[in-house]
Amino acid sequence: MIRVAIIGASGYTGAEAIEILLRHGEAEPVYLSALPEECGAVDEVFGQFKGRCNLEIEPLDLAKLSDLADVALCCLPHKVSMGFVPKLLEVGLKVIDFSADYRLKDPAIYEEFYQVKHTDTANLAGAVYGLPELFRDKIKGATLIANPGCFPTGALLATAPLLKEGLIETDSIIVNSVTGASGAGKNPSSKFHFPNMNENLFAYGIGTHRHMPEMEQIAGEVAGEAVRMLFQPHVGPFDRGILSTVYCRPKGKLSGEKLARLYEDFYAGEWFVRMRKDSPAVKDVAGTNYCHVFAAWVKGLVVCFSAIDNIGKGASGQAIQNMNIIFGLEESLGLE
Amino acid sequence: MIRVAIIGASGYTGAEAIEILLRHGEAEPVYLSALPEECGAVDEVFGQFKGRCNLEIEPLDLAKLSDLADVALCCLPHKVSMGFVPKLLEVGLKVIDFSADYRLKDPAIYEEFYQVKHTDTANLAGAVYGLPELFRDKIKGATLIANPGCFPTGALLATAPLLKEGLIETDSIIVNSVTGASGAGKNPSSKFHFPNMNENLFAYGIGTHRHMPEMEQIAGEVAGEAVRMLFQPHVGPFDRGILSTVYCRPKGKLSGEKLARLYEDFYAGEWFVRMRKDSPAVKDVAGTNYCHVFAAWVKGLVVCFSAIDNIGKGASGQAIQNMNIIFGLEESLGLE
Amino acid sequence: MIRVAIIGASGYTGAEAIEILLRHGEAEPVYLSALPEECGAVDEVFGQFKGRCNLEIEPLDLAKLSDLADVALCCLPHKVSMGFVPKLLEVGLKVIDFSADYRLKDPAIYEEFYQVKHTDTANLAGAVYGLPELFRDKIKGATLIANPGCFPTGALLATAPLLKEGLIETDSIIVNSVTGASGAGKNPSSKFHFPNMNENLFAYGIGTHRHMPEMEQIAGEVAGEAVRMLFQPHVGPFDRGILSTVYCRPKGKLSGEKLARLYEDFYAGEWFVRMRKDSPAVKDVAGTNYCHVFAAWVKGLVVCFSAIDNIGKGASGQAIQNMNIIFGLEESLGLE
Amino acid sequence: MIRVAIIGASGYTGAEAIEILLRHGEAEPVYLSALPEECGAVDEVFGQFKGRCNLEIEPLDLAKLSDLADVALCCLPHKVSMGFVPKLLEVGLKVIDFSADYRLKDPAIYEEFYQVKHTDTANLAGAVYGLPELFRDKIKGATLIANPGCFPTGALLATAPLLKEGLIETDSIIVNSVTGASGAGKNPSSKFHFPNMNENLFAYGIGTHRHMPEMEQIAGEVAGEAVRMLFQPHVGPFDRGILSTVYCRPKGKLSGEKLARLYEDFYAGEWFVRMRKDSPAVKDVAGTNYCHVFAAWVKGLVVCFSAIDNIGKGASGQAIQNMNIIFGLEESLGLE
Repeated sequence: MIRVAIIGASGYTGAEAIEILLRHGEAEPVYLSALPEECGAVDEVFGQFKGRCNLEIEPLDLAKLSDLADVALCCLPHKVSMGFVPKLLEVGLKVIDFSADYRLKDPAIYEEFYQVKHTDTANLAGAVYGLPELFRDKIKGATLIANPGCFPTGALLATAPLLKEGLIETDSIIVNSVTGASGAGKNPSSKFHFPNMNENLFAYGIGTHRHMPEMEQIAGEVAGEAVRMLFQPHVGPFDRGILSTVYCRPKGKLSGEKLARLYEDFYAGEWFVRMRKDSPAVKDVAGTNYCHVFAAWVKGLVVCFSAIDNIGKGASGQAIQNMNIIFGLEESLGLE
Repeated sequence: MIRVAIIGASGYTGAEAIEILLRHGEAEPVYLSALPEECGAVDEVFGQFKGRCNLEIEPLDLAKLSDLADVALCCLPHKVSMGFVPKLLEVGLKVIDFSADYRLKDPAIYEEFYQVKHTDTANLAGAVYGLPELFRDKIKGATLIANPGCFPTGALLATAPLLKEGLIETDSIIVNSVTGASGAGKNPSSKFHFPNMNENLFAYGIGTHRHMPEMEQIAGEVAGEAVRMLFQPHVGPFDRGILSTVYCRPKGKLSGEKLARLYEDFYAGEWFVRMRKDSPAVKDVAGTNYCHVFAAWVKGLVVCFSAIDNIGKGASGQAIQNMNIIFGLEESLGLE
Repeated sequence: MIRVAIIGASGYTGAEAIEILLRHGEAEPVYLSALPEECGAVDEVFGQFKGRCNLEIEPLDLAKLSDLADVALCCLPHKVSMGFVPKLLEVGLKVIDFSADYRLKDPAIYEEFYQVKHTDTANLAGAVYGLPELFRDKIKGATLIANPGCFPTGALLATAPLLKEGLIETDSIIVNSVTGASGAGKNPSSKFHFPNMNENLFAYGIGTHRHMPEMEQIAGEVAGEAVRMLFQPHVGPFDRGILSTVYCRPKGKLSGEKLARLYEDFYAGEWFVRMRKDSPAVKDVAGTNYCHVFAAWVKGLVVCFSAIDNIGKGASGQAIQNMNIIFGLEESLGLE
Repeated sequence: MIRVAIIGASGYTGAEAIEILLRHGEAEPVYLSALPEECGAVDEVFGQFKGRCNLEIEPLDLAKLSDLADVALCCLPHKVSMGFVPKLLEVGLKVIDFSADYRLKDPAIYEEFYQVKHTDTANLAGAVYGLPELFRDKIKGATLIANPGCFPTGALLATAPLLKEGLIETDSIIVNSVTGASGAGKNPSSKFHFPNMNENLFAYGIGTHRHMPEMEQIAGEVAGEAVRMLFQPHVGPFDRGILSTVYCRPKGKLSGEKLARLYEDFYAGEWFVRMRKDSPAVKDVAGTNYCHVFAAWVKGLVVCFSAIDNIGKGASGQAIQNMNIIFGLEESLGLE
């Protein structure tokens, strides 16, 4: 039984990781930590665990942790995470980090978008970007996984076949995404107060969203050349899911059938990526680790769609998928 | 043109009052005040007023106010309101107070439920309970209106015909209500954070809700005897509306037809109370000052239903209805 | 591996049963049938099964079925079900029936509420009411399970401890419930058209809901005397969940502590019933087989609350729980 | 008092027109018609009119109509409308047509997208496209108004300043829109059944939406040259509103300040178009005739945003605005 510690267990991604582990069978949560003011019985913090999980969320105690756990899911926010990850690695744990701290290979870009100096460039170099459908082989032997951002996961799975085969211009990709409100996290705020968010839809992070350089870096790795993406996120009145609509300029004519075949081939054998025959719907993937994709030829452009659960395939589901790969388990354990 | 000041204009009831006044025709908002930290251009505080209302929300200046306005809508919270109402009255304004501070005639009950000493019993005695369908004559000449609570408005309109005619036992009325989430006000909190409140429904204030003694007092006035009501509120995942389902033990047999006639007669001539032939639906009254009612005979009990908008007929709509009555205007101005 | 046939697999309860079985481990769906016009690949009928379940939904073929399956989940509507259940039993299957056809022991009451003659009274007599927390021992050896209605499940689990111990009057129980809109089933209708149901809440089935006699029958069995319940359902703008608020007249004084102890004792050892310290919330049980309960002493009454998922513990979850019991499996398999 | 007939009054746009007229003051609904099977008292068809509007919805009787009304709001579907509009004009009414039948000036394009021959090209030639902010002068003297589609209204108001000034490339505009579910109309369907649409978001009309040629035609008129737009609609889980995010390639550098000034100048004096300083939110315009716009310079592109209510500014609100202009009334009557 793989023993899992969750660092930062008081937020939505921590709770989702616990949910998945409760039905995993070959891994189990053994240790939960959070900031002192967010500690307490996990079934008080999250009502859905009433009687199902008897763990306490407690302040982090590294000494205790090293004996207890094999792997840490580090669900801390950006900037905070890089203060803890080196310590978790030092005590011998595998680490799957949910923050952006180990995703951007170039510290200068990190520092531009996150406005802080990177303090753990040593481990940054060896971190593996945990998108299994693109980097499964590297993940297998990894000690530190940079678990992808939710928007990059959706945008990259929507476009990877086109990028890989060099079928689209790489200087003019537009990614338009709509996320559910759980993406904003658990802290109450005016924007996400129910009477404001309900029956609402708006854009945010105009021109500045931090997932943009992450998308560009990984898309560039897939394409083998620099990729320029304009990413515009929106938030809508639903709990979970991201629909990404990606507009690409193709280098040549691509019929619908050719696109379907391209995607089918690219994702052949992938359990968690599924082709649709029309637009995917976020409700079909909510609460799962699946990504539904579709691509169409429209007026000389290729329009690609992907739907994922922002907390599932976009965070905790993908983290467990990575964990399963690292430990040589069936990749879909806990995720079916 | 009646000049209206709104004290506590930064909350939902203040905003709704402005909306109504913008299309009123014979009254207009002239002065908006709030706590210093909530001040600013009203069209920045509430995006829906962009370019429609150019007023500033400013810290209260009583001296200024006395020249500017004829009437104050006092949208302050319980306990705070009674500190300001005497001053508003002193400078010569009519006052329609949204708080509970002038609703409970017995200061001892007020003090039990609100845990604070009543500091303005002088004005309390003369305040008129502003439910026009029951107390229109008293409202006409009033200087200070205690605008009813949202739940009492719904529960009282649902049961008044039965209480008035002495057709039900007054010791065993059960009021089960579900309100939309705007009832919780504008301040963000964990319970009303979108990812918690969305797709959710729960009870609150079990046995302790402050609208219970208010219902009992007014129901007692209507019935001419003491009335005992058990009131249980719930909150559901919608913005606006309250559905109240009231269970009553009748003194004798009452057919559906007899109930329909009773309600039709009781509310004959009332513009804002409308009979339905089946359960009312909150969506039919959302954004309005209407109350839809229905009553049925079920297995020896009478089950009464009412639907109102908690911010409309349950707060700001009713306040404007009261204002229209006080100033001798058409009662439905701004409310159609 | 237990082989499960789902008869009537094209509706929401069928889909939920498939979801549960896909992660069960010791049971699997092997055969899906529906009306000819609703047949097709299950992953076309329900987008969430894309690539996860390759079964066809096909017209019922009893001959084929007898070799294929060990147990049938019969998700057919009331009145239709009793035409198929005898045939399923004859070919040697265990049957868990989701309809009301085998719940009411008295065919006369069935005929009054369902307006049709009961055509399978032979099997009716031997059917076991499948509420494990109350009737586990009978379920163990059963061949035909009448899977409980969603509202009765919630109302009975909320009140069983009080009924069993004879602590409340049995002639005046009021059950006020609010269900999510999935309770209306999969067929589109004006009431459940999104623009009508969204932001809405209304009562229905006033005085006539068919779950009322079912509640009364089982409550009577638990209490050991006739029980009279007034049941009033409502529907609200969320997908899944039922919150039941039950008002009871106690025979004597019951403190909150005494109520808590009573419920803790009664449900000690039950995996799927959990005590809360305040009102349960439907979101905490949505998508699960759990029931959260709470009871309070309010102004001389006992107010009991329960929250379940109407499709989970209120239908398919409970059916799988029953199946697990019948086949001697761990009761929570597929349901954690 | 302007007397208004509503043809096709049983749908959402008809109901919204009635709502607006009930508070208009200088116009009133006098005649409502629909298909025979959708006729009845308007307050039975739409619960929100209970006691507020006593009209019957009746089968169309042209003879009667000519005496009764000054103007017809023709809320019929595409293809049906052009069968009635000539008759309404013949009996002397002004006509504001909500369908697409009089929007596309080139019958060949109409016939390509609507798959039917245009049967009223005589009146098509003289119809005026009713977007007041762009064509107010032509509207003033019009007899037949082609009321704009909801998506074109949003997309055109978002981009008109740029198109008019020739600041963007006209061959590569991408319009990404998300509409509320009321856009699908009142007839129940599987896609818009609450349990499917709730918590969901998906694209539709991929490459084929009929609003695309309409946008291109009007954008071309504004730009003075052919415009090519790729339009991709989506639908989300809310009642009302459209957020359009438009991606444009500028001909030169445009700063945020320059864009703000451009829009402020272009819409100076317009009552119903308002500039925001960040993304507009659909909730701020829901239930109104306002359009909120914003434009930003992002990575070498201009990203424009607009929010409207699809039934308000996108249909019935705009129709009343047009009516007010035609009859020389204050343009905002009924719409504030």
